[in-house]
Amino acid sequence: MALQPHTSNLPPTLEWRDETLYLLDQTRLPLECVVEATGTVEAVWRAIHELRVRGAPAIGVAAAYGLCVAMQPERQAPRGAFLARLEQHAAYLDSARPTAVNLRWALERMLAHARGAEARTGAEVYEALVAEATRIHHEDIELCAKIGEHGRSLIKAGSGVLTHCNAGALATTGIGTATAPLYCAHRDGVPFRVYADETRPLLQGARLTAYELQQAGLDVTLITDSMAPTLMAQGLIDLVIVGTDRVAANGDVANKIGTLGVAIAAKHFGIPFYVACPSSTLDLRTARGADIVIEERGADEVAQFAGRRTAPEGIKARNPAFDVTPHALVTGIVTELGIVCAPFEDNLAALFPTGAAV
Amino acid sequence: MALQPHTSNLPPTLEWRDETLYLLDQTRLPLECVVEATGTVEAVWRAIHELRVRGAPAIGVAAAYGLCVAMQPERQAPRGAFLARLEQHAAYLDSARPTAVNLRWALERMLAHARGAEARTGAEVYEALVAEATRIHHEDIELCAKIGEHGRSLIKAGSGVLTHCNAGALATTGIGTATAPLYCAHRDGVPFRVYADETRPLLQGARLTAYELQQAGLDVTLITDSMAPTLMAQGLIDLVIVGTDRVAANGDVANKIGTLGVAIAAKHFGIPFYVACPSSTLDLRTARGADIVIEERGADEVAQFAGRRTAPEGIKARNPAFDVTPHALVTGIVTELGIVCAPFEDNLAALFPTGAAV
Repeated sequence: MALQPHTSNLPPTLEWRDETLYLLDQTRLPLECVVEATGTVEAVWRAIHELRVRGAPAIGVAAAYGLCVAMQPERQAPRGAFLARLEQHAAYLDSARPTAVNLRWALERMLAHARGAEARTGAEVYEALVAEATRIHHEDIELCAKIGEHGRSLIKAGSGVLTHCNAGALATTGIGTATAPLYCAHRDGVPFRVYADETRPLLQGARLTAYELQQAGLDVTLITDSMAPTLMAQGLIDLVIVGTDRVAANGDVANKIGTLGVAIAAKHFGIPFYVACPSSTLDLRTARGADIVIEERGADEVAQFAGRRTAPEGIKARNPAFDVTPHALVTGIVTELGIVCAPFEDNLAALFPTGAAV
Repeated sequence: MALQPHTSNLPPTLEWRDETLYLLDQTRLPLECVVEATGTVEAVWRAIHELRVRGAPAIGVAAAYGLCVAMQPERQAPRGAFLARLEQHAAYLDSARPTAVNLRWALERMLAHARGAEARTGAEVYEALVAEATRIHHEDIELCAKIGEHGRSLIKAGSGVLTHCNAGALATTGIGTATAPLYCAHRDGVPFRVYADETRPLLQGARLTAYELQQAGLDVTLITDSMAPTLMAQGLIDLVIVGTDRVAANGDVANKIGTLGVAIAAKHFGIPFYVACPSSTLDLRTARGADIVIEERGADEVAQFAGRRTAPEGIKARNPAFDVTPHALVTGIVTELGIVCAPFEDNLAALFPTGAAV
């Protein structure tokens, strides 16, 4: 795993070794670091469903290998029967997290590859599946690395960099998206500080980002979400980098709840605000952020903290899982193809010269 | 307790009844609502020290009654011996929370009153002490009520009002400071919504504000601190009201960490941002917010909650307990004397025509 976070003690998010899929159980981080072999397709389904593997890119790769796990016992089947079983298993894995776009994308790519493979037997299709899953995996690693190299120049010696939520190595199988420039700058010996928002309500910043950066030896400091503006006022933040779940055609950015507040504060203090993502996250079919439907989750996540009730019984709570940051607050979008700046509508469209929405 | 939050199920923050001080244990809210009699001065000291009673105004009143509790067993002493013991007990209570300004203020006022009282016996001094503690108590109730009446007009029918931390009834012995306009509007039958920031790291918003507003029958919704900007973007917030620990002569406002981010977001969306406090919180000897020393607390409050660890072992954390909101982001300051607006330097000074800094 040459492109794992450089010199990190963090195990890979997932690994395919000796025909077995190993997953780092992210629900037990940061208190326990447990890597588990997933020997059956049911185990892979549960791992995705229970968020033991999470982050859109990582889910896609896990699902691709998950199909390999599923089909191992079927290798002796003739090609036709093998493909029929494959489709059943793909539909099953797809149900693990119905709204995860990368999950379906990876499964459909695996199915298409199996159907098109020059293979006469189930065993040969199986080999083709393993090869395709490995390609999906390596492409993810490569995308992260390219985002890192493009964003690397944003990190100056002595910089303070703020990030929100976890768009890190743990959300991908490489060096992450928002974290990729950080890992590359650290590899190059640039001295800088990272501030990680804890990211209420689910605390991905405290549990995952703080953990993975600490394990890789970066200088990381945890703060509550409410402290970021004060650190900006104190001159400690020179740059913000966050990930995104979807970018609209006009450059509006949907990301974890709390991103909008960070962007507004960054604008107030004149601090550059960057978003990092693979170009597949650019959704040119969605004209603007207002067209993005924001998932509203249950009140208990807000009324509890780490499983402990903090608010009175029966309290109402809002729990939008994401927010939309208007493009006017975005300095640039770092992709594997380069950094895109305003005017976003034109410059994002220019990334896809065929005009094909991705 | 006529001026407790109107029609509330919430017990008073504290009560002096049958020569006994009763305190609502705020460390057990919102899961348990327990009122405890404090029969000894040591019990009062512990209650203040352990934050079972908290909020500057409430601490001052508790300490005043605490001296009465302390001196009850000494009523048979001659006046001189009584006063000597009183000073010892006052010094002891003052040590419960060394940085609480209202604590010392209340104790010194009680001492001065005892020394000046026309009393020939310990028993008569004791009666004077109870009368003075009751006056301090009633003055606090009255201050809250006046803040409420002045701020009441800010709450329009259909308004959404955001508050941060707890500057509520639980921080005072009346209807709070930031909450006072809310309780008055609710009393008057104005229909409006309140959004309470949970206020990490210590969650006073979730534990206390959400609780006391819920018990008083207000329409309150709990959110994480990171959600406020999104609710503003959705048009749900028409007004922000927060409390303050200190206002500088130029109108800069020190308050619980996270207030600055709320103020910046309110400015961004053109939403009025008000601060409520008694005029004793206006510190004209402090020229500007930058002169206010901000307490930095331990990392554990950020890296864990209620004893449960959320971040990796050994993680660095920042934990500034307060932040400073520049006066340019403040629409007005609601005091018992009226609402003060910009230019703050002139208008705050004009509140004190003798020129005496309070």
